[in-house]
Amino acid sequence: MENKEPLIITDKDDMRRWSRSARAQGKIVGFVPTMGYLHEGHLSLVQECKQHSDLTVVSIYVNPGQFSPNEDLSTYPLDFIGDINKLKNKAGGVDVVFHPKDLYDYGKYDGVVNARSNGLEEGKVVSCVENSGQGHETWVRVQKLEKGLCGSSRPVFFKGVATIVTKLFNLVEPDVAVFGKKDYQQWRIIERMVRDLDFGIKIIGAELLRDPDGLAKSSRNVHLSPEQRKKLISYWDSASQTWSMELNLQATSISESLFHARTAAQKGQVVCRELKDLVIKTIHEAGGKVDYAEIVDQESLEVLDEIKSPAVFCIAVWFGNVRLLDNVEIAV
Amino acid sequence: MENKEPLIITDKDDMRRWSRSARAQGKIVGFVPTMGYLHEGHLSLVQECKQHSDLTVVSIYVNPGQFSPNEDLSTYPLDFIGDINKLKNKAGGVDVVFHPKDLYDYGKYDGVVNARSNGLEEGKVVSCVENSGQGHETWVRVQKLEKGLCGSSRPVFFKGVATIVTKLFNLVEPDVAVFGKKDYQQWRIIERMVRDLDFGIKIIGAELLRDPDGLAKSSRNVHLSPEQRKKLISYWDSASQTWSMELNLQATSISESLFHARTAAQKGQVVCRELKDLVIKTIHEAGGKVDYAEIVDQESLEVLDEIKSPAVFCIAVWFGNVRLLDNVEIAV
Repeated sequence: MENKEPLIITDKDDMRRWSRSARAQGKIVGFVPTMGYLHEGHLSLVQECKQHSDLTVVSIYVNPGQFSPNEDLSTYPLDFIGDINKLKNKAGGVDVVFHPKDLYDYGKYDGVVNARSNGLEEGKVVSCVENSGQGHETWVRVQKLEKGLCGSSRPVFFKGVATIVTKLFNLVEPDVAVFGKKDYQQWRIIERMVRDLDFGIKIIGAELLRDPDGLAKSSRNVHLSPEQRKKLISYWDSASQTWSMELNLQATSISESLFHARTAAQKGQVVCRELKDLVIKTIHEAGGKVDYAEIVDQESLEVLDEIKSPAVFCIAVWFGNVRLLDNVEIAV
Repeated sequence: MENKEPLIITDKDDMRRWSRSARAQGKIVGFVPTMGYLHEGHLSLVQECKQHSDLTVVSIYVNPGQFSPNEDLSTYPLDFIGDINKLKNKAGGVDVVFHPKDLYDYGKYDGVVNARSNGLEEGKVVSCVENSGQGHETWVRVQKLEKGLCGSSRPVFFKGVATIVTKLFNLVEPDVAVFGKKDYQQWRIIERMVRDLDFGIKIIGAELLRDPDGLAKSSRNVHLSPEQRKKLISYWDSASQTWSMELNLQATSISESLFHARTAAQKGQVVCRELKDLVIKTIHEAGGKVDYAEIVDQESLEVLDEIKSPAVFCIAVWFGNVRLLDNVEIAV
């Protein structure tokens, strides 16, 4: 149904009631968790979800549990009305938008427990939730997959993700949930968590979507100026004695260099060190600061020295104060 | 219905299918997780469960995830046929006994991931599951409540309990689950986990049951000899110049001394140090080795110096190689 107004649910119990009622009618409930500020990438997850379900729930909730106190929770972009319109007009409508206020607020202020939260364990990584002292103290950890890649530079991120996804699964009680392969490590972590904790939910990984210039779609792209994506620069060509123009790749150097590495690997260049060096050099010259660039096994996310089995080249890059993720799968 | 044969389910998918079918018929599903070797205490949990549900599921599964490699997994008592008979004859019948074989076996041997499990994090506590290398790597932790009391001497215990209960909740999908207050810390941890992870399950804490001699009922009591519970000793009474008999409390000194402490507290003796010293001394004289004896807040399990609010005196004691738990709630 096109242009359908979604039912907006903000209350936990209402959400579960809706879902159980849908299930009791034999409907397959599909779920796409998001942090809002929706773009075509999210909408493609919704489309994917609809292929596998009768009814679709999209959650819009910026999860404080996956941000460290020094990360960009406060500047994370929000546009709830715009999101609803996109879901209504571009994705052909969804059934429910679950938009809870605070999923870590349990109503009762528990003074004794909170008093203890000051005495955090040594070496303990702190999320915005632990800092706000709401008494929440249960965390889900996927101990091996959460290491490395984004886990290295964002120590609370995946425990925050695994925990909020568990909470959302328990509230929405879906049959199917869709995660983007843009966040490759996240997708694998959720798959593993669902297996290890025996959730009765099928996880689908949806392909990464790119802008026409190759940049992977992300809510954070809004912070990039046009010049930070790519820009034309003019220079004096002494050979031809004329002014000339050149396209200076900036953020788009990420995807360009990844595609180049994939092609090289498919042509037989399978030594990861050399593939990585090339990508890092290209992005560095374009003005980016590489947070990590790793070629890992597609399932275990084990770092590879040589590409012998299905691999994925995962990268995180800072352009200015914007951190961008990208990856390409490499089948050899 | 008396003497009802329970349906025995061993397969994960069959369990979930049964539960969803029951729910679709509007039935309230109640759940009692156990590790088997059932005694009157478990049967009282089943009775409690029936007060709150239309259909009752009891799981019998010895969870390797809550044992350290040096703990008593291999000698944990088993009696599946006896358990089924008790459930049939003494508890008035249950609907389902869920008896899975191995809840950490995911079918596929994942060599790459397992290879990494040798390089466990520093200071990481290892459970029998991590040691068996089945690729399971997701753990649920209730970070504050799992500290102290049993958590101090059994470092993997509560992460194992929280994780297996999450798995069982996801497989059985009950509306109500019953936990015994005999395992007081466990009950509070499950309550908190259910709140923090938004499980749609009501948790009920059932009262501790005691044998006529006062000993808290436990599967591990089977390892105690009659003499380790209490014994009569004869001695020469020099005052009366006769042989006399005296009841020498051993394991039963635990409950005796706890009751005594509760009475003292209710009479105004609220300094925890003194109450604890008395209990420790009594048990020590009876031949027991106190693992811990703490008076804590009933909800936060925060250690108390003085009893000013509802408290619980929790204790763990070794008699020989049997570790016994007990507790009394103290309302002042």
